[in-house]
Amino acid sequence: MKAAIFQGKGKIEVKEVPDPKIDGPDQAIVKVTYACICGSDLWYYRGISDKDAGSRIGHEFMGVIEEVGSGVKNTSVGDLVIAPFFISDNTCPECKVGQTRFCRNGFFWGQGGSDGGQGQKIKVPLADGTLVVVPGSKDLDNKMLRSLLPLTDVMSTGHHAAVAANVSKGSTVAVIGDGAVGLCAVAASKRLGASRIFLVSTHEDRAAIGKQFGATDIIDVRGEEAIKKIKDASGDLGVDCALECVGNPDAWELAFGAVRKGGNIGFVGVPHGVPDIPVTKLMQSDVGVKGSGAHARAYIPELMEDVLAGKLDVSAVFTKDVALADIAEGYKDMDERREIKILVKP
Amino acid sequence: MKAAIFQGKGKIEVKEVPDPKIDGPDQAIVKVTYACICGSDLWYYRGISDKDAGSRIGHEFMGVIEEVGSGVKNTSVGDLVIAPFFISDNTCPECKVGQTRFCRNGFFWGQGGSDGGQGQKIKVPLADGTLVVVPGSKDLDNKMLRSLLPLTDVMSTGHHAAVAANVSKGSTVAVIGDGAVGLCAVAASKRLGASRIFLVSTHEDRAAIGKQFGATDIIDVRGEEAIKKIKDASGDLGVDCALECVGNPDAWELAFGAVRKGGNIGFVGVPHGVPDIPVTKLMQSDVGVKGSGAHARAYIPELMEDVLAGKLDVSAVFTKDVALADIAEGYKDMDERREIKILVKP
Repeated sequence: MKAAIFQGKGKIEVKEVPDPKIDGPDQAIVKVTYACICGSDLWYYRGISDKDAGSRIGHEFMGVIEEVGSGVKNTSVGDLVIAPFFISDNTCPECKVGQTRFCRNGFFWGQGGSDGGQGQKIKVPLADGTLVVVPGSKDLDNKMLRSLLPLTDVMSTGHHAAVAANVSKGSTVAVIGDGAVGLCAVAASKRLGASRIFLVSTHEDRAAIGKQFGATDIIDVRGEEAIKKIKDASGDLGVDCALECVGNPDAWELAFGAVRKGGNIGFVGVPHGVPDIPVTKLMQSDVGVKGSGAHARAYIPELMEDVLAGKLDVSAVFTKDVALADIAEGYKDMDERREIKILVKP
Repeated sequence: MKAAIFQGKGKIEVKEVPDPKIDGPDQAIVKVTYACICGSDLWYYRGISDKDAGSRIGHEFMGVIEEVGSGVKNTSVGDLVIAPFFISDNTCPECKVGQTRFCRNGFFWGQGGSDGGQGQKIKVPLADGTLVVVPGSKDLDNKMLRSLLPLTDVMSTGHHAAVAANVSKGSTVAVIGDGAVGLCAVAASKRLGASRIFLVSTHEDRAAIGKQFGATDIIDVRGEEAIKKIKDASGDLGVDCALECVGNPDAWELAFGAVRKGGNIGFVGVPHGVPDIPVTKLMQSDVGVKGSGAHARAYIPELMEDVLAGKLDVSAVFTKDVALADIAEGYKDMDERREIKILVKP
């Protein structure tokens, strides 16, 4: 079988690797239907985060169960499954309260002897806890499969930003970040009943997708100017919920500037150089701050229900498909911001 | 008339002052029924915060309307009113969303030409916005008046801690701080439906009041030991909601230690020396942080309803009454932590 291999900064190669073999009762083998490239895969590609050259890469995929270990009970051969970006047992105390990203026995793809997610087949540890079976999968067309794929990460992450910021019926929302996660945060906010959704975007193509996902207002400027526009448009008050989907200091400043007194910032952008938050700053604003990696495993079932019912479709974040053999081209496209997100066909 | 005057560190005197006179259409004169001494009055008394010698002090009182300015519409002579600790217009954008502590035209007692709250009569600016009229006050006995008095500050503040931490039906809660605010936070948590309430208290008398208010577990140790006890008792997980009612670094450490992944810290202790919060620390725990001074004006109506219905009574925080003439003794008692809270009879 073939899989994408990280070969150091800027180098992704597709190589022949041994087929995965089950060597534990909790495992399953998944034949991948679709995978994708994540913005966080680019950290390695860009040399921002360390990763061993020669190691498997990727963490977003769905596929069909090919084999299961003797202890696997929740899924069986032939099932279509969605894999969240974090492996979890779904039984520990944290998992039981929905905090699957913090499963005390959990780990990321590529860790704990697991495979990376960009390949033709994947060995899945803790399969019962990790994988979500798609019901009625035999009747699903390709369009529906593409709509389910974002649940592995970006749609769950956008949803988490909205949940962390307490988006609910009637909320006014500002989404900061027009990448795949930001766009999914727009869709998540609409789904949760937001009455007005500002999307900060200076890219016409991304803004257009944002509007399609439910953004009511595009803020096509940055910094103080963006804050002023959002405040002016929200009764000189600011929004109830600011969704920080970038992770840099400018985005945080925008979030604090756009949110009203007593509002909430939900953040999912992995922080790079974001300054520590003074408690007095919070005290003087009653602004709540909450965020983390998404609990995709916990969120997928409810999001999947809406996808299968035709009520949620963020597949427009996939602006290009590549074959696994051409995945290096996909990394280059995303690195150079030519595409929002790449779907990989193995 | 007589009023308490701050005369510098450790000195409170009661002096004859001119009766207040209405000099604006928005004002009212309140003849004080009961006032109280607040922990935050001690900041001046202890020389921690600056205040002019010779100035009026206090910000917690209730009383009867004696006179109203020509523009006052919501209250009239003879009404019993509760005054929140912050003056607000209740009409600005922040007030309209319940953020009365951040009223853009608001200020504290003693500021903006207003009187301090410990005296026989008080001039109230923005009376329509600030004062809450108690319905059916002619039928209320002294016991009920004492139960209403904590709404001016400590009960509203305890409620705010619980609201900020999202305490709701079934929540597990840890309250950090056994002062009047912490004890009220216990009562607020119970009122909001918490299923289990840990009160961290090493003082038997305060713990006893906490139990009376709804604490299910008293944690009579500090620091790491307290965290361990709370975790052990909450399924090796930690609590959903930690209510930080102190404001020092130890209390914050306890809050972060006691709260579960994905839980919330609500804080109302004015921070002294609390370190800035790294965003990565939040990211690695999904713990939400939110707090500020309480929106007492916004909270009083709903809390009052429960007090008047006999469902909420935190008057046990008043462990001693003093006459206004003896208020210096009350300050000394609170400064030396002999009493939890002092009620002042003018």
